[in-house]
Amino acid sequence: MQTKRTPSLLAAALVCALAFTTAISRADPLPSWNEGPAKKSIVEFVTKVTKPGSPDFVPAPERIATFDNDGTLWAEQPMYFQLIFTLDRVKALAPQHPEWKTKEPFASVLKGDLKDALAGGDKELIEMAMATHAGMTAEEFNKMAGDWLATARHPKTGRLYTDMVYPPMIELMAYLRANGFKTYIISAGGVEFMRVWATQVYGIPVEQVFGSVIKTKYEVRDGKPVLVRLPELHFVDNQGGKPVGIHEYIGRRPLLAVGNSDDDFEMLEWTTAGSGVRMGIYIHHTDAEREWAYDRESHIGKLNKGLDEAPSKGWTVVNMKNDWNTIFPAEKK
Amino acid sequence: MQTKRTPSLLAAALVCALAFTTAISRADPLPSWNEGPAKKSIVEFVTKVTKPGSPDFVPAPERIATFDNDGTLWAEQPMYFQLIFTLDRVKALAPQHPEWKTKEPFASVLKGDLKDALAGGDKELIEMAMATHAGMTAEEFNKMAGDWLATARHPKTGRLYTDMVYPPMIELMAYLRANGFKTYIISAGGVEFMRVWATQVYGIPVEQVFGSVIKTKYEVRDGKPVLVRLPELHFVDNQGGKPVGIHEYIGRRPLLAVGNSDDDFEMLEWTTAGSGVRMGIYIHHTDAEREWAYDRESHIGKLNKGLDEAPSKGWTVVNMKNDWNTIFPAEKK
Repeated sequence: MQTKRTPSLLAAALVCALAFTTAISRADPLPSWNEGPAKKSIVEFVTKVTKPGSPDFVPAPERIATFDNDGTLWAEQPMYFQLIFTLDRVKALAPQHPEWKTKEPFASVLKGDLKDALAGGDKELIEMAMATHAGMTAEEFNKMAGDWLATARHPKTGRLYTDMVYPPMIELMAYLRANGFKTYIISAGGVEFMRVWATQVYGIPVEQVFGSVIKTKYEVRDGKPVLVRLPELHFVDNQGGKPVGIHEYIGRRPLLAVGNSDDDFEMLEWTTAGSGVRMGIYIHHTDAEREWAYDRESHIGKLNKGLDEAPSKGWTVVNMKNDWNTIFPAEKK
Repeated sequence: MQTKRTPSLLAAALVCALAFTTAISRADPLPSWNEGPAKKSIVEFVTKVTKPGSPDFVPAPERIATFDNDGTLWAEQPMYFQLIFTLDRVKALAPQHPEWKTKEPFASVLKGDLKDALAGGDKELIEMAMATHAGMTAEEFNKMAGDWLATARHPKTGRLYTDMVYPPMIELMAYLRANGFKTYIISAGGVEFMRVWATQVYGIPVEQVFGSVIKTKYEVRDGKPVLVRLPELHFVDNQGGKPVGIHEYIGRRPLLAVGNSDDDFEMLEWTTAGSGVRMGIYIHHTDAEREWAYDRESHIGKLNKGLDEAPSKGWTVVNMKNDWNTIFPAEKK
């Protein structure tokens, strides 16, 4: 019985495998992207660098793609989500800090006057971040950030922050990985804040998520080793810091880099100055209806120099309104 | 013809596959290790954490193994090889620095008086490292280190430094990778010095090689972006800095950590304080004949506290003389 059946089983298996392969190769890997020059340039680039024998072929270990996070993989309006987390922490910690009632920027945050609270600029923002992100162990911070992300809601959309990620970008990262790329986050956001949720939401393992870093100290407390977060910045992964971070964390120049603001300019510049074909992509926030529209004059995610120089540098500018048929995922209730 | 042949071909393929699988599973993955308690504890540990259904099973993404480099993966006597590189650089750069003739520690190096040159301790060593490792672009440093490693010879063995790596450790790393582990270097040595050769010699991709880091600045020179090395340390990946570095670079606690000196104590401590089964390994230099024998009193790679505490912490101590039948690889002439 067995010997007679084998050939037909083999044939059937072959037909199945062929049908399956064809279905896979025909399926659109970027269904949330409308047909247009942006999608076309991405698919052409990936095809070029992955096709064996192509003059532009790049071996898999060198296929590195780096992504900014705020405004590139998830939204960033009306302010960085980690800043909203910081403000929530200030409110939660206020009872233990009576002095904050009269000390800026804390006093304005507690009075609900955000404009005054944020008027001091970076110095005061960093002071608040240090007051709320330091003084605990890494494990404690991790739990605190996880708890907040599981419950906090965006002031405008009412969504969980992890439901304000962009499906077109998640598709792009999956498409790249399916083509042998390693996908990395290179963000000015805090690395430990992102690592709490990035794997689940983006499919990127924690060891490929990098961002700004607070100083940490190793200590043995009651016989148990802990990493204590100190109120001091160790590394700011922004602007020129992004190529510096990429060099330290990855040690290879990316083949592809994606950002959305002038803070990503140097990352795109460093990436596309490499030898052979490289790709730089800017996500341009143009959809006031489904998301937000902002660029040259924005207080957050300012994109001015980048828009000026993208054409001469050969970077692809993605127009969110035209190029994406989906902005946010279906909500997980 | 085809249909008649298929069954016997299938049967033959099956027999071949089976024979091959058996051969593979029976082959000793650690042939440079003598049978004994060290080898046994390693194999038992790997079997335990990789066996599906075992109470100690660990999913592949969490199988992280970290290795010190100097004295653990390659030799470190009579001084760290990167220090020999530094001294060679001082000699090479001397013509451009007439002031070094009268300035310590440079003057002693140039006179060939190493004892005096190294007497100043860490501060003077760092001064020499900064004078020779900074002031150029990352690309230039990379080339300089590569050129040195391709030609410089060890003062005692006459070998290339990359021929002074330990095959038993290379086997151990390959064995771990074959069992789903990701292998990392976490060394006090300079990260860029190691990345020049680590992939070729150890099979570890550059993005899994971490060490001490010099400050680097992004600059555009004549329209070309470069990373300029500054004469200042950004991060010292040693002692308590090793768990800090692991946390920043990997974001996961290792399952297994290997070192050879008290400078690795915190890495082993942090690793084995994690939940579930973990493994800490010390390589003990006990072979004065084939390599060097040193521990509690050594000026380099001192292993004192580690030897005291290994038994109570359950760490495996590898006795190089007894546990390894090979110390260095056959030389590539």
